[in-house]
Amino acid sequence: MRLSRYFLPVLKETPAEAQIASHRLMLRAGMIRQQAAGIYSWLPLGYKVLKKIETIVHEEQQRAGHIPLLMPTLQSADLWRESGRYDDYGEEMLRITDRHGRDMLYGPTNEEMITDIFRSYVKSYKDLPLTLYHIQWKFRDEIRPRFGVMRGREFYMKDGYNFDLTKEDALHAYNRHLVSYLRTYERMGLQAIPMRADGGPIGGDYTHEFLVLAETGESEVFYDSEITDLKFGSREIDYDSVEQCQAVLEEFTSRYARTDETHDEAVFAEVPEERRRSARGIEVGQIFYFGTKYSEAMGANVQGPDGKPVPVHMGSHGIGVSRLLGAIIEASHDDKGIIWPEGVTPFHVGIVNLKQGDEEADAACESLYKSFEALGLDPLYDDRNERAGGKFATMDLIGLPWRITVGPRGLKNGVVELTCRRTGESEELSPVDAVEKVAMIYAGLKG
Amino acid sequence: MRLSRYFLPVLKETPAEAQIASHRLMLRAGMIRQQAAGIYSWLPLGYKVLKKIETIVHEEQQRAGHIPLLMPTLQSADLWRESGRYDDYGEEMLRITDRHGRDMLYGPTNEEMITDIFRSYVKSYKDLPLTLYHIQWKFRDEIRPRFGVMRGREFYMKDGYNFDLTKEDALHAYNRHLVSYLRTYERMGLQAIPMRADGGPIGGDYTHEFLVLAETGESEVFYDSEITDLKFGSREIDYDSVEQCQAVLEEFTSRYARTDETHDEAVFAEVPEERRRSARGIEVGQIFYFGTKYSEAMGANVQGPDGKPVPVHMGSHGIGVSRLLGAIIEASHDDKGIIWPEGVTPFHVGIVNLKQGDEEADAACESLYKSFEALGLDPLYDDRNERAGGKFATMDLIGLPWRITVGPRGLKNGVVELTCRRTGESEELSPVDAVEKVAMIYAGLKG
Repeated sequence: MRLSRYFLPVLKETPAEAQIASHRLMLRAGMIRQQAAGIYSWLPLGYKVLKKIETIVHEEQQRAGHIPLLMPTLQSADLWRESGRYDDYGEEMLRITDRHGRDMLYGPTNEEMITDIFRSYVKSYKDLPLTLYHIQWKFRDEIRPRFGVMRGREFYMKDGYNFDLTKEDALHAYNRHLVSYLRTYERMGLQAIPMRADGGPIGGDYTHEFLVLAETGESEVFYDSEITDLKFGSREIDYDSVEQCQAVLEEFTSRYARTDETHDEAVFAEVPEERRRSARGIEVGQIFYFGTKYSEAMGANVQGPDGKPVPVHMGSHGIGVSRLLGAIIEASHDDKGIIWPEGVTPFHVGIVNLKQGDEEADAACESLYKSFEALGLDPLYDDRNERAGGKFATMDLIGLPWRITVGPRGLKNGVVELTCRRTGESEELSPVDAVEKVAMIYAGLKG
Repeated sequence: MRLSRYFLPVLKETPAEAQIASHRLMLRAGMIRQQAAGIYSWLPLGYKVLKKIETIVHEEQQRAGHIPLLMPTLQSADLWRESGRYDDYGEEMLRITDRHGRDMLYGPTNEEMITDIFRSYVKSYKDLPLTLYHIQWKFRDEIRPRFGVMRGREFYMKDGYNFDLTKEDALHAYNRHLVSYLRTYERMGLQAIPMRADGGPIGGDYTHEFLVLAETGESEVFYDSEITDLKFGSREIDYDSVEQCQAVLEEFTSRYARTDETHDEAVFAEVPEERRRSARGIEVGQIFYFGTKYSEAMGANVQGPDGKPVPVHMGSHGIGVSRLLGAIIEASHDDKGIIWPEGVTPFHVGIVNLKQGDEEADAACESLYKSFEALGLDPLYDDRNERAGGKFATMDLIGLPWRITVGPRGLKNGVVELTCRRTGESEELSPVDAVEKVAMIYAGLKG
């Protein structure tokens, strides 16, 4: 993309309403615009990152054998009356009446609807196991929306639901989700720690939250410092293997790691003192096993091997897709702006032309631009008639991990400058070598 | 995908509530499920086609230089009070009150919000031209939703908005949209004819609707038969070229083609009698130029070259993404089921194993499956223990354009059978040749 043709409304001033870095930076970098309390437009740059994150979530869900579908945003109240949650849910549920006076609601989650879909079609244990998921806009009418997309009202979320014949099978689905979530977050450059959590209104005996450590996190967390040394890395997993998934679960959850909701001082005291940590964390996902709660309430039975109907065992598993943008920025920024991890960056590389209009500089930039495009990479070329300082400030603010600076002086020596946003380090390279180096970095990403 | 692990709930019975072929076939093929009047879940097969169509729309929009963003589904009523449409819109607008008593609505379209975004950031004519678009769920509270996704209440739509300094520039944007729409529909295997239309509630002096001819269309249309001979084909277009875009507009709109709303018997009578046609059509898109209607009402001005503020010239341009599934099926099905055009088919090829459990047949199917995956193609392998008749019926119903049938008898002669869904013609080929032939067909698609 050429910046002169893009729509990137960066702000010079720091918006007064933003209390935390991610909110501030998303507004300043022209990623979002508030349209009403807790409701945002995703401007082109923000939308691009949102799509990158969504794509990673889709790829990892499908790698784990989960099947995508899409449920609508609006639901009939009747479904929620069946489960008993229509009255329980309280004021966070946005209730709507249509022109015929029917009670509707903007879905805050989808346990009821997916159970309805399941019971309508699946009749035999032979069709299990089955995990269906979708990524869809949801609404929770938060009384005090804040922190930008971190606690918005209209938010984008992946929610998946497993259907299994037995508790044992459902716990494998639980473990499979845990494994796939670890992989998902790592691809986004995040360390998200699974912590024992509280069931809350969805219910559930088994549940873990995934938390990203950040000073601005809404939860206080307590953990054994060994846990931050764990990496999922490039290991190959057979998601059908009960043993492999169980082993990953044990590796990542055997050390102490809890939010304040489930924190137990006595158990924590057993961790050697030098490894005890308390910090703040941002929740970016949660997995639940809740047994037959919804299947019994809503009659989601299958015919078992003995011919008798049995309610299916279920779980639900969520990733906060829109919230992840905020979490990633909280975990990865400096005083100049955002620092995108390579896995989610909106553009792979920025090209800064120090002297727009200079024949050689323009030609070198065009050539770099076309080389990246030919390699399937997505460059952002700042081709505006602006001073170098302004161009650098914009690139730093929007946080592209790599920048190539092109100027007449360097070109005389046959070089451009390649700068790493995270370290600030630069090196001079020939244009060909600069392209090759950037291409190598992205080729090495797992995907 | 292996069918044994997929979720494809095909129905044996024809659902009584479905009046037209596309609605019937989408229900029978397990593509959609009605959750409330005019509100559907997109089951995995339907979701896959929806995504294919969405991807084509995105690609063609961006090829034309239009920039994607994403506006939320819910909007503040205040924006619509500015334009005067809050009171005008009537009962089709779903009005919502949040917990704080604020008036909201589920967006039926986005002229107000995009104008608000524009006026907040763009101050100078130097930032023009600009075309922003999004693909988002919308809601119109139709009094009698019907025909499945063709006239649903919650529907998926691409709507784009151009901002230009002058009427002349805005008409180039109009023409550019017309060109890109022609290309978009052709990639989906559709002939969509631009017809002179009526401005309706959005307003607009210049507007064309795109109609697909189909017996079940809601509009009566009148046209010169020469128009159906026009193809956009593989021509290369420079979307920045006023002349090229204008020439395409003239080529595709100079012959008589109107809906009943704008039909003029006297003008139609000038078409030679043997070329006069009347038929029915399904609207799949519409483009508008409406000048300064919204920019004046909402103060969307830029500083012009002379330093004085001028209201921008705008247009809006829509493609009914979810509706297109219905339109494509109406235009392409037979009594056995759907016939997907290659550009939007949910799977590229079906593999039918005539004797599941036979060692050689299973191995040949696995090998075909992996060959297609290695080529980046998406096969659906029917690996269930079902009779051949049932497997063929399912493949015909869900409409994959190509099917490979594998059985022990053929394998003895070193062949499998490749069948074209549209013609029903089959040929015997070695497995390697069958893969190559299918790969060649998809390699030839424009994209």
